[in-house]
Amino acid sequence: MQEVYIAGIGMTKFGKDPRSLAAILSEAAEIALGDAQVREVDALYIGAMNPEEFTGDANLASQVADVLGLTGIPATRIETASSAGAAALMAAFQAIASGHYRRVLVLAGEKMTHLSTSATTRILAEVIDKRERLCGATMPALAAMITEKYRQKFRLSQSNLEKMLCAVALKNHRNGAKNPLAQFQRVITRRDYFGSKFIATPLRLYDCAPITDGAAALVLTGDPTEVRLAGIGQGTGPISLQDREIFTSFPATRIAARRAYEMAETSPQGIDFAEVHDAFTPFEIITSEDLGFFPPAKGGYAALDGKTAVEGVLPINPSGGLKARGHPVGASGLAQVVEAAKLLKGQAAAKREFKRALTQSTGGLGTNNFVAILERPGAPAVQNLWTPAPPSATPPKQKSRPPGDVIEGTIETFTIVHVTPDGFLPPLALALIRARDGTLLMAQGEDDTQLKIGREVFVRRLDGVFLFTVKSQLQKVQEAFTRLWRGEPATNPPQDSRIGDSR
Amino acid sequence: MQEVYIAGIGMTKFGKDPRSLAAILSEAAEIALGDAQVREVDALYIGAMNPEEFTGDANLASQVADVLGLTGIPATRIETASSAGAAALMAAFQAIASGHYRRVLVLAGEKMTHLSTSATTRILAEVIDKRERLCGATMPALAAMITEKYRQKFRLSQSNLEKMLCAVALKNHRNGAKNPLAQFQRVITRRDYFGSKFIATPLRLYDCAPITDGAAALVLTGDPTEVRLAGIGQGTGPISLQDREIFTSFPATRIAARRAYEMAETSPQGIDFAEVHDAFTPFEIITSEDLGFFPPAKGGYAALDGKTAVEGVLPINPSGGLKARGHPVGASGLAQVVEAAKLLKGQAAAKREFKRALTQSTGGLGTNNFVAILERPGAPAVQNLWTPAPPSATPPKQKSRPPGDVIEGTIETFTIVHVTPDGFLPPLALALIRARDGTLLMAQGEDDTQLKIGREVFVRRLDGVFLFTVKSQLQKVQEAFTRLWRGEPATNPPQDSRIGDSR
Repeated sequence: MQEVYIAGIGMTKFGKDPRSLAAILSEAAEIALGDAQVREVDALYIGAMNPEEFTGDANLASQVADVLGLTGIPATRIETASSAGAAALMAAFQAIASGHYRRVLVLAGEKMTHLSTSATTRILAEVIDKRERLCGATMPALAAMITEKYRQKFRLSQSNLEKMLCAVALKNHRNGAKNPLAQFQRVITRRDYFGSKFIATPLRLYDCAPITDGAAALVLTGDPTEVRLAGIGQGTGPISLQDREIFTSFPATRIAARRAYEMAETSPQGIDFAEVHDAFTPFEIITSEDLGFFPPAKGGYAALDGKTAVEGVLPINPSGGLKARGHPVGASGLAQVVEAAKLLKGQAAAKREFKRALTQSTGGLGTNNFVAILERPGAPAVQNLWTPAPPSATPPKQKSRPPGDVIEGTIETFTIVHVTPDGFLPPLALALIRARDGTLLMAQGEDDTQLKIGREVFVRRLDGVFLFTVKSQLQKVQEAFTRLWRGEPATNPPQDSRIGDSR
Repeated sequence: MQEVYIAGIGMTKFGKDPRSLAAILSEAAEIALGDAQVREVDALYIGAMNPEEFTGDANLASQVADVLGLTGIPATRIETASSAGAAALMAAFQAIASGHYRRVLVLAGEKMTHLSTSATTRILAEVIDKRERLCGATMPALAAMITEKYRQKFRLSQSNLEKMLCAVALKNHRNGAKNPLAQFQRVITRRDYFGSKFIATPLRLYDCAPITDGAAALVLTGDPTEVRLAGIGQGTGPISLQDREIFTSFPATRIAARRAYEMAETSPQGIDFAEVHDAFTPFEIITSEDLGFFPPAKGGYAALDGKTAVEGVLPINPSGGLKARGHPVGASGLAQVVEAAKLLKGQAAAKREFKRALTQSTGGLGTNNFVAILERPGAPAVQNLWTPAPPSATPPKQKSRPPGDVIEGTIETFTIVHVTPDGFLPPLALALIRARDGTLLMAQGEDDTQLKIGREVFVRRLDGVFLFTVKSQLQKVQEAFTRLWRGEPATNPPQDSRIGDSR
């Protein structure tokens, strides 16, 4: 197979950018073409998540070819939700590896800041399973539920978990402060972190990557340069939380990593630093475990102990990550590669010398993930000793249930959403419930108190949405329901211990 | 380079389909996997144009992997507007040719019929340059302007042009009537054609492909089968009509064809039949010239003479084409390949024996086009004798013009739009105007009479939209303008021969 190298890199200043998406992409492209000292390429690959809804314009690939004065050459847009930039890299990699093209321009970008936060949240939430969206689930809400499960499974106290998340946020802001292209270039303090509002418990504002405009670009070539794209892999995972058995790991990352390590003939031990998808701080921790850098449950401690700082044993997100560099969704997967190449070439703020880097990008809620490995000549060979855990069984699929049915189960994980989508009032309790038959379902809480993993609940369905009540509150709900049903104040609660719509 | 073969094909019944896009794609996939007698593939490539806006769901690739029970494997969505299905085929082709994957599933689909025609028209029109959209341009309107230019350049009478378009529509409906998966399965008559209403002159309802739901699927493999994907090429063209110099040809098709013929080591003379992108009947005629089947200006006569009928020397769209088979936009580029493979394998209605087929797909207004060539073993070698015309110069780019400026020019081409986008009253006159300085601009007519290519006009700008008036009507407009400007009935027209907003 033809080997693939990076000939040039480019990136815009991330943040609010008043220009059109095509203009932003065009700037990144010009920088990369200049860096590679070339003017002509054989093809164009563009990663973008949802330019149609973010900007109202479609046909992005042709549009960008036009703006760049490259009309005529093949131009293709690639999309895998928030990992679109990495997906474009993969398509371009294969196009060169196949011998079809010799030199291609890979671009990725998104324009988001001109919309309201609620409009942006709605567009971003379209990657979530429709059933879960109907309950009011947003990306931060689902990330929060994964975080709570991580805490419970690995027996972390609330306070220990918070310290770990805070450590990731502070580190990434510290790194971003040294990156002139980062959206946030200021150090934040523990006080800033703990003073920031909850988006969805236990995640605060400073646990979430911002809304950003920006683009990244790369010239890939078959001719040797100082940075080789040594390995690349992709894996997918279930869309819905309720179709998963694993909540504290993203199997899609493990699949992608295995492939990338194999192709690059290396292992986690051979990686000098990594750029990973920290759209939410807990994702950096989970991903550092999925990539084999730390054993399960140890990623948070590693962050807390400074192992992932720029001066640590395995720097993670030396560029500031999505958290501080910013997260123009379709761009991030490629921006990571640009940042990693910059650091390998000695052009970044961190002044250590590195030989081999890994980048990891996440699409949706860990549904479409990529891992790439970049190498300088002379990177030491490392035997591949890593065997990721085999993918686990999936839970039984949800059955269709009659509307009147009442389901008994336990809380598998939960969150209280403070920044809700349009049409949902905060605070909104959401939980993943494991029914007695082993199936999982997403439900809205009838109130937001007494939530705890393992607690027993009753679930009923109303207008297609599941509603849950913690068992101890059953009496109150029964009474309210009975009153409603009879159209009169109930004096005696019904004898039947089940609640629900008996139509 | 690893050779690539078709191991299985599948397609849903095109038309109105009440199921979700994922379910429609899934049916096509199951048919193709069954046809290939395989259950496992290395990766999934999915072409879709705009599922986000058509269905409200994003993250299509992960979603489909999930529905198919293939979660874990790489799944990528590819988009190049209405040629997305062909773009997915190309990405899959390169993935196998590079040795990355051995067997992949290529899918393409779109779900459109559940929206109103005006919502669908709006979504489809997002592929058009924003400046042209602001004038009220739709895809049929731009196709109509290209058609009018073709008529004038090749000196066809109105009546001759109409007969040619009618011949294409009748042929494709005749072919569709024999295709059990086609949306329209009835023969139409000349009376049906000429009785159908104008969408945008000279295009009638029967010149336009319908709104359709549907999906197509293909299993591609590195292991030899009876149909080889022998060549594939892609080319791009300018987004805007006003950035073009050629209106009677799509250079993107010529670029794609040259590449595909070279790769397959064949020429137009080696092609036994073709499936081409007849979203509008004139596109079939223009494309048959761009592919080198007929010389420029002769494609319409070929259709009229029956040369492109199933029993003709070079059958075009034996499946019924987009016109009769239906046009689920993202699906069409792959559905063509499925139909071509079916006919090569002797599984289609046409009972002739064919050895080599060509498929051609168009993204946007000829902005992102693909050509693929399929071969059975023993297809006769044909020396490549074809040299397409070199790409021509592009016109000078439009300058930004001060609002009060009046531009003099001539009509380059025009249409009268009868089915207008929301917010525009029919009939709406649209013209491409060539200004004295050689630049082109799209403008709305102040009325819809006296339009003819070459006629002199004045153009003014109002609220960012250009408005044109045929010169002989200048007096009336001057008077009306003067009255409006003075707030009183004008007795004498102004001396200045320029009209316009003098603020």
